[in-house]
Amino acid sequence: MNSETKHINSAFDQDLDRLLTLLMAMGGQVENAISKSIQALQMSDLELAEQVIADDQRIDALQEEIHTAAVNCIAIRQPQASDLRMVIAVMRISDSLERSGDHAKNTAKRMPIITQHPHRQDKVASLCRFAKTTQTLLKNALDAFIQTDEGKARQVIAQDFDIDQMHGSLFREFVTYMLEDPTIVTPILHLLFVAKNVERIGDHATGIAEQCVYLITGRIPDDERQRHEDYAYLRDSIAG
Amino acid sequence: MNSETKHINSAFDQDLDRLLTLLMAMGGQVENAISKSIQALQMSDLELAEQVIADDQRIDALQEEIHTAAVNCIAIRQPQASDLRMVIAVMRISDSLERSGDHAKNTAKRMPIITQHPHRQDKVASLCRFAKTTQTLLKNALDAFIQTDEGKARQVIAQDFDIDQMHGSLFREFVTYMLEDPTIVTPILHLLFVAKNVERIGDHATGIAEQCVYLITGRIPDDERQRHEDYAYLRDSIAG
Repeated sequence: MNSETKHINSAFDQDLDRLLTLLMAMGGQVENAISKSIQALQMSDLELAEQVIADDQRIDALQEEIHTAAVNCIAIRQPQASDLRMVIAVMRISDSLERSGDHAKNTAKRMPIITQHPHRQDKVASLCRFAKTTQTLLKNALDAFIQTDEGKARQVIAQDFDIDQMHGSLFREFVTYMLEDPTIVTPILHLLFVAKNVERIGDHATGIAEQCVYLITGRIPDDERQRHEDYAYLRDSIAG
Repeated sequence: MNSETKHINSAFDQDLDRLLTLLMAMGGQVENAISKSIQALQMSDLELAEQVIADDQRIDALQEEIHTAAVNCIAIRQPQASDLRMVIAVMRISDSLERSGDHAKNTAKRMPIITQHPHRQDKVASLCRFAKTTQTLLKNALDAFIQTDEGKARQVIAQDFDIDQMHGSLFREFVTYMLEDPTIVTPILHLLFVAKNVERIGDHATGIAEQCVYLITGRIPDDERQRHEDYAYLRDSIAG
């Protein structure tokens, strides 16, 4: 939070500062998990993939810590109105981060199958670009929330449509690989599920940005999303 | 909640009753969405699929209503300890239900592509059985929560492993269809993503059951889940 916007030195503010610090730490670990899972895919690095899987426990532990601290803060400080909404938003965002971490872990778990396919390197390039875009989106969404920056949050929401389009293109690309060479159906299928994991991380980024706009304006900006989704359904139902 | 366990007639109890009534209504609508999406798949009924997509807005509206009521209840009644945890659990369960509804909607959105495939009827039988099992699991998880029934919640958690196994079998079945006939790759891919949606609904059911055990015992029963997951990874990493 901007230092201008908070009432200095109250016990509630100290609790909130601790919650935001924990949330930023959790966000950093989730970004790290996404980044490592992409690198593992690019480099066929099974050891790095194992590390992503093992590290997920730390992310889960941080989520538990945030939930416990948030519930204690609500019980002891009895915050009202926007302070209460803020603490609840931190809990919900930690849920989104935990799920994003799970998607990175799921990507890492698919690595032993994907690496069995000898000519995958050229096939994962677009997927890695897609994953990096989404990773940046999640980082921006979290920054928007921490900095109470409505403009930045709306930029994240606006990119939801690009994420859907990139996912649609990847889906088509992978289907053509399968049709060209049925012997690689299984690894390509796993790459399709990795793309789905990445798309879901993008959804979580949008959700966090929406929480941020809601906290600032009191309204969830769902109109734009709904429109994109309907449009995507008519134009591009193949990509799901 | 059992009538024995609550302090009768307090303003908090009235709020909680209203929250639980809303949660049950939401659960009913989500079960309905899952049930209709399966029926649409079985019967190739595009109209029913459209209805599932349209009805999702009502589920989203109920989630918003629950969140608003929960935040107001916390702000006005300032519940402590187990009462506070209960209200927060209702919010988190409504999030899980909303996501389960989204998975049913996503299944419905894939129908126009899936119905283009003429010989799909025999291919969706196992998928429909899988979906019905998962739908029952979600219903049982919600019942366990409403009835504060730890035994029922643990039964749901124990079935998480079966859900993973059923999903693994479906994955293999669908891959063989693709290998036998590459012309049906696209519709089968969508059936694979439907299976993934169903599996995720199962994950939400498990999550709700875990919330329930946590409320009753004060501990999240994550040990069993972790063990199953690790085992699944070694034995069956293909199914993701």
